[in-house]
Formats: sequence, structure tokens, C-alpha cells
Amino acid sequence: MNNFADRLLTSIKQRSSYLVAGFDPQLEALPAFILKAASAEPSNDGAIYSALMSFHKLALETVQHKVAAVKPNIAFFEQYGLAGLRAFADICKLAKDYKLPVIADIKRGDIGSTAKAYSAAFLGRSNIFGRKEPMFDVDAITVNPFLGFDTIETYFDDCSTYGKGLFVLVKTSNPGSASIQGLSAGESGTVSEHVASWLAERAANFMGSGKYSSLGAVVGATYPGEAKKLRELMPKNLFLIPGMGAQGGSAKDAVAGFGSDKQGGLINISRGLLAGFTDAHCDNSALGAEISKRAEAFNAQVREALVTAAA
Amino acid sequence: MNNFADRLLTSIKQRSSYLVAGFDPQLEALPAFILKAASAEPSNDGAIYSALMSFHKLALETVQHKVAAVKPNIAFFEQYGLAGLRAFADICKLAKDYKLPVIADIKRGDIGSTAKAYSAAFLGRSNIFGRKEPMFDVDAITVNPFLGFDTIETYFDDCSTYGKGLFVLVKTSNPGSASIQGLSAGESGTVSEHVASWLAERAANFMGSGKYSSLGAVVGATYPGEAKKLRELMPKNLFLIPGMGAQGGSAKDAVAGFGSDKQGGLINISRGLLAGFTDAHCDNSALGAEISKRAEAFNAQVREALVTAAA
Repeated sequence: MNNFADRLLTSIKQRSSYLVAGFDPQLEALPAFILKAASAEPSNDGAIYSALMSFHKLALETVQHKVAAVKPNIAFFEQYGLAGLRAFADICKLAKDYKLPVIADIKRGDIGSTAKAYSAAFLGRSNIFGRKEPMFDVDAITVNPFLGFDTIETYFDDCSTYGKGLFVLVKTSNPGSASIQGLSAGESGTVSEHVASWLAERAANFMGSGKYSSLGAVVGATYPGEAKKLRELMPKNLFLIPGMGAQGGSAKDAVAGFGSDKQGGLINISRGLLAGFTDAHCDNSALGAEISKRAEAFNAQVREALVTAAA
Repeated sequence: MNNFADRLLTSIKQRSSYLVAGFDPQLEALPAFILKAASAEPSNDGAIYSALMSFHKLALETVQHKVAAVKPNIAFFEQYGLAGLRAFADICKLAKDYKLPVIADIKRGDIGSTAKAYSAAFLGRSNIFGRKEPMFDVDAITVNPFLGFDTIETYFDDCSTYGKGLFVLVKTSNPGSASIQGLSAGESGTVSEHVASWLAERAANFMGSGKYSSLGAVVGATYPGEAKKLRELMPKNLFLIPGMGAQGGSAKDAVAGFGSDKQGGLINISRGLLAGFTDAHCDNSALGAEISKRAEAFNAQVREALVTAAA
């Protein structure tokens, strides 16, 4: 299926899950048995890589039928330097073995040839001594619109050619998101609504075979009132919805951005799913059982919230 | 000197240059003799790394006394995958041997713990199995304010502790920058001016021993009228000024954002300095001479523009 929205909606259906598992690793939050095994590596870089790979391999294995996609956030890998980035690249590759769409949460934003370089790195092909080669090659990325709509358009070619998706930041989940996104921009409404209107107009160029477009928006679960309004402005754009769980959004808040068909939304869950382990999670089997239990609980919450939303 | 503004202004004085050399490599634009030498490497990754290192080593050697700082843009390295990022890390390190301040042009923007991870990676220290270790460890980074002022504040601790600098995007040099930055945000003026006012208020917390603060702003050379206005709003913030040369800004346009003391600005030059080579630049010596000649010509243009600006 050469359209991201189609691949994602199929995965949601097959897995009966609206969740995306966010990979935001902090070494110090990994289970002790994984850190202990990694410490046998002769180098620091080897230990970092080994710890990150062991944990995410188990996470992928465990959630492969319980979430619709995975979302590694590159910041958490970059903080571990080149060893972390090597793990990022290999985890993205590994997710393909499980047929899980990968949304690389990179929030890139730059102009002209620079945006083209990011697009080549993550969505398209890089020119390596005259040959076109894929680099990180994920299914979709998150991007930041602050530099202007011309900079977002830079990614459109690769999205069309390679069937990739974009999630443009519209309303983020943090407490201070209003300081720019919430500014009143005259007739366009808020800055968020201005971005939303632009995305809505362009959705048609990236439609899958169903109701949704591969040109998506990031809309936080922590502002359900705004999410409803943004959904009205963007009936066809996929929503990537962060902020449920640790950040305070409930499942009910998170589904506020879904369409009237109760589709079109993908809810991120990171720390709530993949952090906060204890000594009881002392081997792959115990850890897998815990992650599995949590994923099922979140799926149940979201399904219930969708039923209630119907009433 | 544990303050970025001090280090930068000292470098500007010592080198008599207001230029920052932007490293935006495209393999296909590197001189033929460098590509040929790199092609002897047994692996693709080895050839990428070798080509990027040879070129930037010569560039650093050549411009070490002719520019005040260097600004590698990570996008251009990321497009070459892990080999490119390894070159990015090693070029940042190498610049220190030449005592050139490094501004990593990464335009990051994310929330809470994610922004903290970026800050650790580039400005502070990462927690590696209980030890605090520097990763990319550059002098300053560029950041994107779209996610909110709370997200910019996340970097402040590392800036203070480690004497680092931030350049926050205020008005970028691209044709479409107005689509968000130019929106009228009520009493605050434009979105750019709203960000500028916020940065001006916080400049005092990061002052060096002179007139300028390590909390800087990115203000494009392609909008000199706006640059003047933004300088009035931000008298103490360092300006990083892209857009001269290939993007159409003149030296006169570029100095529009300088303070009344003809300081406080750093002008980026990338393609005009480090691309567009011909068969005549066929070895290190010929290439070095060309880069050197270009750097001197840009320095002369900027100095003249500053003299004229006084009249």
C-alpha cells in the first residue's frame, strides 16, 4: 500500500488499537536486568547501544499486535550520541520486521535545501555518490511549521513519491503551547487554526483510499476543546495525539480529536507504557507481561472512551 | 571564558570578522579530487565520512583566522545517515582545536523532558549509567520557539551552567517566513516581534561582560527593514544572520540587524564560501586558496557595509 494513511488505518483495524507506542528512552529508567546485561559490553557506546536495543526489541515483540504504530522520538536517542542514533536507526528498521508503521518524532523545521536534506534522510532518498539511497527511511515524520508553509511543501514530493506521511505541529500538549500557537492571528483565528486551515486545504493531495489523508496534524490530548474545533477545521487530516497519561490527558480527552466516524486519530502513549518499572520486572518474560498488560489497559480505556463519545 | 557571548565577541575581535562559516555539505558539490580520494574507501559509509572530513578539515584550516565561528547544519550530515552524523560530531570536535566557537544549527524544538534531552545532547551532559558526560557539546545551538516559551526555558539551565548560547528563530530568511512569523498577533505586533519581546526581557540573565547576551536570535538578512525593527526590540541579544549571498541578501542588508555600536551580529555564509568549485580547485592548495580568497572578499564587503552604515 503506497499511501501512509492507508497503511496506518489498516494497521489500526488489524490490531484493533488506536495507540502509537512512543519510544522515549532514558537509560536510568530502563529495567535493572537490561542495564546489568548491557554493562558487560566492553565500551560505553556498546553498552548504550545494547541497552537501548534489548529494551526496544522486547517492546516491539510485546506490542506488535497491541499498538498500531511506533513513534521513536529522536531526541532521546540523540542524547546518547552516535551510539544512541545507531540504536534509533536499527529500531526503526526492526519495527518493519513486525510490520509496524514507524513515525519518527523529529519535529524538524528548516528552509529550502535544508528541509530537502531532512526529507531525503527520513522520507526519500539521499544522493550518495550519484546513487539514490534511503537512509533512515521511516513511514512518517513530525515537522514544525514555524519557518513557513513553503518549508512544509518541501516534504510533499517525497510524501507523494514514496507514500510517506507528515504530521505537522498544530497544537502541542505542553502547558506553554499557547504562547505562540494560541496567539490570535486575526481572521484566521489562532495561529493553530491558521496552520489547521492550511493543512485542511492540502489534505486532498495525499488522500488514501478511505476518508483520511497522509498529511496529518499533531493535536495534543491536553486541550480537548481545541481538539474538537481543530477536527472541524481539518475533517480529513490524520491526528497524532500526544499528552495522554503522564501529561495529564485522559482517554476521553484524547478521543476528542477523532472524526465523527470515530477514526482518524492515533493516540501516543510513551512513559505510561514503557517507563516506571520495578524490581518485579526482572526478566524479559516479567517485563513483557507488564508492558502487555499496560497496552491492553490503554486500549480498553480508548475503546471505552470512543463508545461513550458516541452516546 | 565561561560565557558564550564573551567567547564569540572575542573571536570576532581577534579574527576581525563578523562571519560564521556555514557547513551545509552536499556530496555532489564537493571538489572532484576530494570525492576521488574518498572513493578509495572500502565501504560507502567510509567514503561518506572521509569525503566530509577531508573537506571540512581543509575548510577549518583555511578559515580559522578569517571567520569568527562555524555553523554546521546537522540536516546536511543527517542526510548521509550515521556516517554523516559521525562526521558532524568529529567536525564539531575538530573546530575546538582551532578555537573556533561552534554553533550547531539544529533548529530543535520539543517539550519538557524531550527538550531536556536535546539540551543534554548539545549543551549539557547526558546521564550515562550514572555518570554525567558531554555528547556533541557545542558552544551554541539554534532552537525553534513554536512549541512555546516554556520549551525554550528548558535550555536555560545548561546555558548558565556550561556558558552556552542559544539562537532562537525570530525571523527566518526564506520567502515564506511570513506565513506564520508575519502574522499580526495583536498588541505584540507580529509573531516575530512577540518572540523578540520575550527574548529581550530574558537577555539580562545571560549577559557577558560586554553589551551582549548569550541568548540570541536568528534574524534573516533578506528582510533588512524588519531586522532594524527587531534590533530596536532586542538591543542586547546577539543576532545570527543568515541569507547573505546565495539567498539574495547583500552585506548592507546583513548589517541592518547590527547594534548602533556596529556589533552584536554574526553573518552566516555557506554556499557562497564552500560550494561552487570547479576543476581549477584540484588539490588542497588550490581549494584552500579559493576559499581563503572568498572569505576575505566577504569580510571586506561586511566591513565596508558597516562603514557605510555609519555615514
